[in-house]
Amino acid sequence: MQVNLPREVFIVSDGTGITAETFSQSILAQFEISFRIIRKPFINTVEKATQVVDEINKVSNSKKILPVVFSTLVKPEINLKISQADCIIIDMFKNCISPLEKSLKLKSNHTIGLFHNNANTQSYKNRIHSINYSLAHDDGQASANLQNAEIVLVGVSRSGKTPTCLYLAVQFGMKTANYPLTPDELEKKELPDDLLKIKDKVYGLTIDPVRLSEIRHERLPNSKYATLQNCKFEVQKAEYLMKINKIEFLSVTNKSIEEVASTLLQKFNPEVISTKE
Amino acid sequence: MQVNLPREVFIVSDGTGITAETFSQSILAQFEISFRIIRKPFINTVEKATQVVDEINKVSNSKKILPVVFSTLVKPEINLKISQADCIIIDMFKNCISPLEKSLKLKSNHTIGLFHNNANTQSYKNRIHSINYSLAHDDGQASANLQNAEIVLVGVSRSGKTPTCLYLAVQFGMKTANYPLTPDELEKKELPDDLLKIKDKVYGLTIDPVRLSEIRHERLPNSKYATLQNCKFEVQKAEYLMKINKIEFLSVTNKSIEEVASTLLQKFNPEVISTKE
Repeated sequence: MQVNLPREVFIVSDGTGITAETFSQSILAQFEISFRIIRKPFINTVEKATQVVDEINKVSNSKKILPVVFSTLVKPEINLKISQADCIIIDMFKNCISPLEKSLKLKSNHTIGLFHNNANTQSYKNRIHSINYSLAHDDGQASANLQNAEIVLVGVSRSGKTPTCLYLAVQFGMKTANYPLTPDELEKKELPDDLLKIKDKVYGLTIDPVRLSEIRHERLPNSKYATLQNCKFEVQKAEYLMKINKIEFLSVTNKSIEEVASTLLQKFNPEVISTKE
Repeated sequence: MQVNLPREVFIVSDGTGITAETFSQSILAQFEISFRIIRKPFINTVEKATQVVDEINKVSNSKKILPVVFSTLVKPEINLKISQADCIIIDMFKNCISPLEKSLKLKSNHTIGLFHNNANTQSYKNRIHSINYSLAHDDGQASANLQNAEIVLVGVSRSGKTPTCLYLAVQFGMKTANYPLTPDELEKKELPDDLLKIKDKVYGLTIDPVRLSEIRHERLPNSKYATLQNCKFEVQKAEYLMKINKIEFLSVTNKSIEEVASTLLQKFNPEVISTKE
């Protein structure tokens, strides 16, 4: 019976633990188990580590089953403390950093918070700037002023433009904009002039009309806007408009934001240069 | 001299590669090297893997230095193909999944895309719903209607409320709202009634007035709004208002969005239950 109980999983990090949590979720998804994730960020002293060990041991004693601990701790003394807990420990940094040290013939820094503790760097400021830019250029706002955008998404209402744009801005610091194709534009089969000027940045999203109709019914139940007939009409016109204007597009129907974003990154930003500031 | 040239780093994934990229960036941050990340998502066939191997070998031959490859590939035959490239390979799944299989005495699924390929699950739909909610409740909009919010951030204009809210919505599917404290409210030293009703969800952000003045000058140069004197006044009043109303708050001055978000998650959402759908 115990197999169906959620397994306790601790994410122990000396930083935010956010990357560690995302990565461990993708690992846990490979196993047929339910789990309860307990976040333990900012464990940057031996004292805090000792408290976490106590908590892990308490779970271990009461549940009679070892909790799983994913740790990303760069300081050896903190790592040593956590490794003494009664648990299955997956030391993510050691598993990846040690082999890299050997191959690169370089020592790692063992410095806490190198990745996210960068709020004063130029690249961080650019990222915040991109989030503000993307908000200001959501849903066709300020469409006369898109020369600074890196990507401009077009598509019918509720085809997933806004979540994709925000994801790219928040996660990758990209300046995004999006423009909903209006019934007028669909009828004229023409992209607005503002978009024609920057056509190499324009990319289309489309969606299965049945799914679109469901989504629109959640937003405006029983409206003409949400009817399957109207959704079919708009999607067909939008795809036709994108084809004759040679705008590349993809269907988001069964895709997550991450999958759409990754496809867009491949086209618009396939590489990242990272230099030490 | 070669040490200063950026090292080529390939991220090879059978899914989006986004988690792999973020995790490998946090590992690479531990080394004093510059690098050029080349994204290779959706490598889900041996044919695609063969093309990537050719590309890796081309870099390896021309640069006379082995590229680093971070791989997260669950299919053994694809993994085998990539492992034949001339490179330093860090197999992230193998490094973490193999020890976990042994400890849990369970076999993993070796199924591609289990983590992100979930656009049709309820939890994914909730996440999209949360993004739309957070956009609709940004900057004091719809503030009479906050009972469904999980977190409501307050603070003066440009204290980081919007980026933090969007990050929590996009990354963690949390319904967030934010409310800018206006000069009127600061003067009266009172929270608006809409917020008093849901006080247990309200959290404050504050910021060093010097930094705030810089940020506001970027937005509205030479305005009264941006003067150091005005920023000092607003921050002082806002912190006083939060103290006397017993609203917990933190300073974002030297913190990244991730650090602020992680602190908020510890308070409002320290655990996650994940069950197989």
